[in-house]
Amino acid sequence: MTNDETDRLLKSANLTMPELKALAAEYTPQMLSEIWTTLDTGLARRIFLALGIDKKADLISWLPDSEQEKIITFLSEQNTRLLVEEMEPDDLVDLMQSVSHEVRRSVWESLSDKAKRETLFLLRFDEDDAAGLMTPRYSAVQQGLTVAETIRFLKNKSSEAETIYYVYVVDKLNRLKGVLSLRQLIMAADETLVKDIMLTDPIYVREETDQEEVAQILQAHELIALPVVDEAGKLLGIVTFDDVMDVIAEEHTEDVYRMGAMGGFIDPYLSTSIPRLVWKRIPWLVLLLLLGTVTTNVLHHYETMIVNAAFLIMFLPVITQTGGNAGGQSSTLMIRGLATGEIQLRDSRRILWRELLVGVILGIATGAVIFLRSYLMPPGVELSQAIAIGSSLIIVVFFSTLVGTFAPILIARLGFDPTVMSAPLMATLIDVAGITIYFETAAYILRF
Amino acid sequence: MTNDETDRLLKSANLTMPELKALAAEYTPQMLSEIWTTLDTGLARRIFLALGIDKKADLISWLPDSEQEKIITFLSEQNTRLLVEEMEPDDLVDLMQSVSHEVRRSVWESLSDKAKRETLFLLRFDEDDAAGLMTPRYSAVQQGLTVAETIRFLKNKSSEAETIYYVYVVDKLNRLKGVLSLRQLIMAADETLVKDIMLTDPIYVREETDQEEVAQILQAHELIALPVVDEAGKLLGIVTFDDVMDVIAEEHTEDVYRMGAMGGFIDPYLSTSIPRLVWKRIPWLVLLLLLGTVTTNVLHHYETMIVNAAFLIMFLPVITQTGGNAGGQSSTLMIRGLATGEIQLRDSRRILWRELLVGVILGIATGAVIFLRSYLMPPGVELSQAIAIGSSLIIVVFFSTLVGTFAPILIARLGFDPTVMSAPLMATLIDVAGITIYFETAAYILRF
Repeated sequence: MTNDETDRLLKSANLTMPELKALAAEYTPQMLSEIWTTLDTGLARRIFLALGIDKKADLISWLPDSEQEKIITFLSEQNTRLLVEEMEPDDLVDLMQSVSHEVRRSVWESLSDKAKRETLFLLRFDEDDAAGLMTPRYSAVQQGLTVAETIRFLKNKSSEAETIYYVYVVDKLNRLKGVLSLRQLIMAADETLVKDIMLTDPIYVREETDQEEVAQILQAHELIALPVVDEAGKLLGIVTFDDVMDVIAEEHTEDVYRMGAMGGFIDPYLSTSIPRLVWKRIPWLVLLLLLGTVTTNVLHHYETMIVNAAFLIMFLPVITQTGGNAGGQSSTLMIRGLATGEIQLRDSRRILWRELLVGVILGIATGAVIFLRSYLMPPGVELSQAIAIGSSLIIVVFFSTLVGTFAPILIARLGFDPTVMSAPLMATLIDVAGITIYFETAAYILRF
Repeated sequence: MTNDETDRLLKSANLTMPELKALAAEYTPQMLSEIWTTLDTGLARRIFLALGIDKKADLISWLPDSEQEKIITFLSEQNTRLLVEEMEPDDLVDLMQSVSHEVRRSVWESLSDKAKRETLFLLRFDEDDAAGLMTPRYSAVQQGLTVAETIRFLKNKSSEAETIYYVYVVDKLNRLKGVLSLRQLIMAADETLVKDIMLTDPIYVREETDQEEVAQILQAHELIALPVVDEAGKLLGIVTFDDVMDVIAEEHTEDVYRMGAMGGFIDPYLSTSIPRLVWKRIPWLVLLLLLGTVTTNVLHHYETMIVNAAFLIMFLPVITQTGGNAGGQSSTLMIRGLATGEIQLRDSRRILWRELLVGVILGIATGAVIFLRSYLMPPGVELSQAIAIGSSLIIVVFFSTLVGTFAPILIARLGFDPTVMSAPLMATLIDVAGITIYFETAAYILRF
């Protein structure tokens, strides 16, 4: 959203309701959700009321929990009913799960019987599974129908289904038997039977398939929607590409936060309360701090060397940093490769040879740079000292590259998700080893 | 892809061609591309030949440059012609841009006149722009047509267009005037005029719109395709949701690599040659190393303190690490928030107050932990020393939080992309400041 667009909305407090309606019509629900928390409460309410009912429903599904709750609380019973009627079943379930007990009750009482049934049905599923993403509003026909009958069915059904571009073919027990695209239907002769032109081996996911896998499958097959079936093969609903795009964005934020040492929380920054923000950050900081104090004990072990060869200390931060950076590069490559499926565990041996070689080259390159830097530039050390510093960096970088490469692979082999192990955790572990390598190498070369 | 699926393909060397065809049919082009580089050349060729022509074309577009080149080189002229005829125009252009001069010539000579025209047309555009993502194979009609005529037009056109779910309405000069969905067409009466039911204000992007913005717009409006127009408003092509999903995955990898101190290269790990991999990593390592050696000069400045108060050194790594982690958390939140649009530059003042408070709390929490750790656990320091260590960590963490928050905002204000500034770069800068703060605070408290 441009600054100009944001400004016009922020300065709309004096507009009449018709003017506000015209203005709000220019914004998508997502755009509104982005600046929602910067609006003051009165203006936010007026803008909400100025929106068309379908946009209200969409906006609600984009807002964070606390804002959803505020809106429902200030709406009249009548308006709540109109709003929830308009919402997609999957968005409605998300709303029900995030608001407080009282608001949930008032939303529930506003629901039609059909919406209550759909909601109860969807509430059975885990929100991170395929079933948690799906909508029960798909288009499905029986195998015996003709193309003309199917198109007529779609015309009647169209206002309700989330998409009519894919039509699923089911048997009498609602088991998924095939799929047809509207494109195929348009191309086919009217009297053709659906079962003669349908794709009989449709791509589908099970209700318990993880949302990340759902996203990969939909993307790999470039599908607009993906059917979700239960263990008996019965069609439960469909996941559409737009929901998958939201999942991909969410997983992306989660990955980035993990790399930034904040676990996997994915709340937008500005709508996260300060206590929650602090609470999400402190455990990681303290954990890494406590792990990091192992370096204190390692350094204690080398106290005599510290006092007698203070120049070594001056290069300690840059040595551990460089080790951490090299290890971080390797682990980033591995974690991302494993996540996209580009790297398989079977490739371990091939990766070992590659990274052994890469580690040696990176070690020699950085070792040469620090040798020259320490020997030639202030504060300046003696030749033998520069050799000790350069040699130990070669070993530290080589070692860090291997740890950065194989820690994620090991974690994946043990059956855990390697993205959970954040880069800072790796850096901390590498620090401990790096300090030891540094002092031992220097002691050996300088004969302490 | 499961291990079992990979195994079956890797062990398929002894299969007959019909068996191999049946096996290969079970894999999507994307799945094949994932393990392509692990196959030996002979097997890869046989599997390629076993694929249907449309799958061959798809697979080519998924493979890295070097593999594309290998395949084209071994194909006969006849087979190359069949293959390129089947490829989507946008994939063909990508292929042309990535292969060597000789291969490009042989591909070019295999093209039909129509494909040559399409290719020349698309080659005019930058590959990171909207126009670089688009296909010229859209469906468009004139405003005067009826619904029935439009549906008839689509039936004839269908085999060629990339999607017929959106039909664009243009005037005689091919300027975009509106859009219709196939869903609307199906629902409307046959004799209705297209211009009476079309959406007259279609969402579109300009040819030079950046691909990241294209992705955001398509996603915000939940569209299957987005039209691309030139400055005169003429329709040039469409970008479809599946291409946008690929862009999103690419941008994700780029972000993660940047956080891992590797610039923004996005080649898959296993198909990147070792020299290229090393070349992508060394500049960052050396740059960060040279910046990091500023810490050497800072430490040199405190040489007397190092010798006289060696216990301070033992806590140095954990102090700078913790500062780096706190700053990294803040910068991750800012960079991600700015990238998703959730944080706007206008929010700076609000963020300042939040982060001042968060920084104080995080500082006190981590300061308290290190105070207790240093005072109570081995190697053990005196009370005044523990107070000095704890107090300085409070200031270091507070300072790092502010730097981590405002460096990305400053960079964005200056008009640069804050994701380019990787977290390790931030950590290096925070190290220099952290060491200074640490020694100055300790010197003040301990009266050195």
